[in-house]
Amino acid sequence: MAIKIGIFGYGNLGKGVECAIQQNQDLELTAVFTRRDPQSLSLLTTGIKAYPAVDAPSMKDEIDVMILCGGSATDLPQQTPELAQYFNVVDSFDTHAKIPQHFDAVDKSARQNHHIGIISVGWDPGMFSLNRLYASAILPCGKDYTFWGKGVSQGHSDAIRRIEGVKDARQYTIPVEHALEAVRSGSNPELTTRQKHTRECFVVTMPGADQQKIKEAIIHMPNYFADYDTTVHFITEEELHRDHAGIPHGGFVIRSGKTGSSNEHNHIIEYSLKLDSNPEFTASVLTAYARAAYRLNQEGQIGCRSVFDIAPSFLSPLSAAELRRQML
Amino acid sequence: MAIKIGIFGYGNLGKGVECAIQQNQDLELTAVFTRRDPQSLSLLTTGIKAYPAVDAPSMKDEIDVMILCGGSATDLPQQTPELAQYFNVVDSFDTHAKIPQHFDAVDKSARQNHHIGIISVGWDPGMFSLNRLYASAILPCGKDYTFWGKGVSQGHSDAIRRIEGVKDARQYTIPVEHALEAVRSGSNPELTTRQKHTRECFVVTMPGADQQKIKEAIIHMPNYFADYDTTVHFITEEELHRDHAGIPHGGFVIRSGKTGSSNEHNHIIEYSLKLDSNPEFTASVLTAYARAAYRLNQEGQIGCRSVFDIAPSFLSPLSAAELRRQML
Repeated sequence: MAIKIGIFGYGNLGKGVECAIQQNQDLELTAVFTRRDPQSLSLLTTGIKAYPAVDAPSMKDEIDVMILCGGSATDLPQQTPELAQYFNVVDSFDTHAKIPQHFDAVDKSARQNHHIGIISVGWDPGMFSLNRLYASAILPCGKDYTFWGKGVSQGHSDAIRRIEGVKDARQYTIPVEHALEAVRSGSNPELTTRQKHTRECFVVTMPGADQQKIKEAIIHMPNYFADYDTTVHFITEEELHRDHAGIPHGGFVIRSGKTGSSNEHNHIIEYSLKLDSNPEFTASVLTAYARAAYRLNQEGQIGCRSVFDIAPSFLSPLSAAELRRQML
Repeated sequence: MAIKIGIFGYGNLGKGVECAIQQNQDLELTAVFTRRDPQSLSLLTTGIKAYPAVDAPSMKDEIDVMILCGGSATDLPQQTPELAQYFNVVDSFDTHAKIPQHFDAVDKSARQNHHIGIISVGWDPGMFSLNRLYASAILPCGKDYTFWGKGVSQGHSDAIRRIEGVKDARQYTIPVEHALEAVRSGSNPELTTRQKHTRECFVVTMPGADQQKIKEAIIHMPNYFADYDTTVHFITEEELHRDHAGIPHGGFVIRSGKTGSSNEHNHIIEYSLKLDSNPEFTASVLTAYARAAYRLNQEGQIGCRSVFDIAPSFLSPLSAAELRRQML
């Protein structure tokens, strides 16, 4: 009997979850929920229907785990606690500063209704967080570094699009190679934000727009660009669609630490991701944790969890004995 | 109150555990046990004594977790189940083919005596295993690659030392750079053992030994070298001590996988270690899992576990709320 999954929200992330479910034989898609007109969606999975978001609670007995695919700014803070009343839930909430309060809200709702909620699942927060935890527990005398990229930052691309005269834009966050090398050397450098990443922008302007003025507006934009070395390229709309249509991302978590009676030995633990599709990879992580949510709840566990609280074996379709034989 | 740790076996690994305990404020060393004359050991930790191995059971009420630092060939298969009668235990059993039977033996003993046993802790098996599991659960349509090195293989060095006319030797396992690059490219190559690693040997010979004959004996040695491209360098004893005294190791676990409605997107997950001291790093992993063993047992859990069965949060001295705030 496959684990029955619902998808709540059908943007890039929701579509990615649909694809990921198709790769896992022990999971099956039951329904997609949307705030748009359900008729307007064309699902990939034959025989599966889209329903209005408001209908979700009525399907609580038909779905084992609901995967929430909305945004962290306004959707998830409201949706995850609400849906945890009816379902085991998994989300990718990624506003780091608000994780504690989101955790508490989901925990309360999930406990009251005997469900499991797993929040902040993806790669950062998610797999990168796990690697920070494992590496710091193993090498307590050390230092963590997280680098992001090369990849598209949706937030920064949006910020450029809001500038007058800009028609479209794509922003890449790029780790600085010599900063990466310094970290890998074990020298434990102190690195400012500017020293770790550069930002590269590809911008399509409206006819007659003042490109010099737009460039100045970008590179001096507070919070987004002012603290970075930023490069701006003006390109045509055709070039943007041809060369920058993908949503790649990735990055590096590196811990450099010392061991020995006088800290004489150095060790480097490095975890890196190189992703052709940021939303599809995040969706794949969400889908593996949906399996974990179901199993934890089957064991009688309730309440909110993060990736830190879940034994790795819960993520795999293999049994514990198979895992020991094949992967240990 | 610190968690009280015993070390059973005081070679390179046991000394590494002693160093690791000093880096963790919530852990303290209680005693070291040895099959050698305890008087012959000089411990690093002031005020701590070495005892004969046979005295361990008598200290069962003074130690929370015993970390076993013996070898996998003959020590651990006997010692871990035996000591699990008296203590929570952690070992680094690394004979992959015999893990299932070792697990069962430790599980039986630990359950009967209400202890936790964690086996096969280190980096492979251990952190590399974890990364194989996480990556394969996230990207089910993909392929795993494990590369070892550059590092010293103790077993292969010993095999060379057994050849007549050899005084001392050091063998390095080296990953083949273009095989690594092929894997990172996402092309999912089929790679034979020979294509993934080369072996480099530094050999000190007895006066008058036939170096050509020794070289032939090495490169044609079945199981150890015959399946690899092997390079042999003859050096002086001084050069061996000067240039090859360390025990570095490391390696790479790479998963290359596809997502998307028609598997059109490629993803690379890479975990790598670069270790100045193989035994001290393994010891640091053992020490973090000793913390987990204690906590699991405090929760009332009993029986055998592998790294797959343990939620990451158990490894860290930080509380769940601190971890969410600082690392998620």
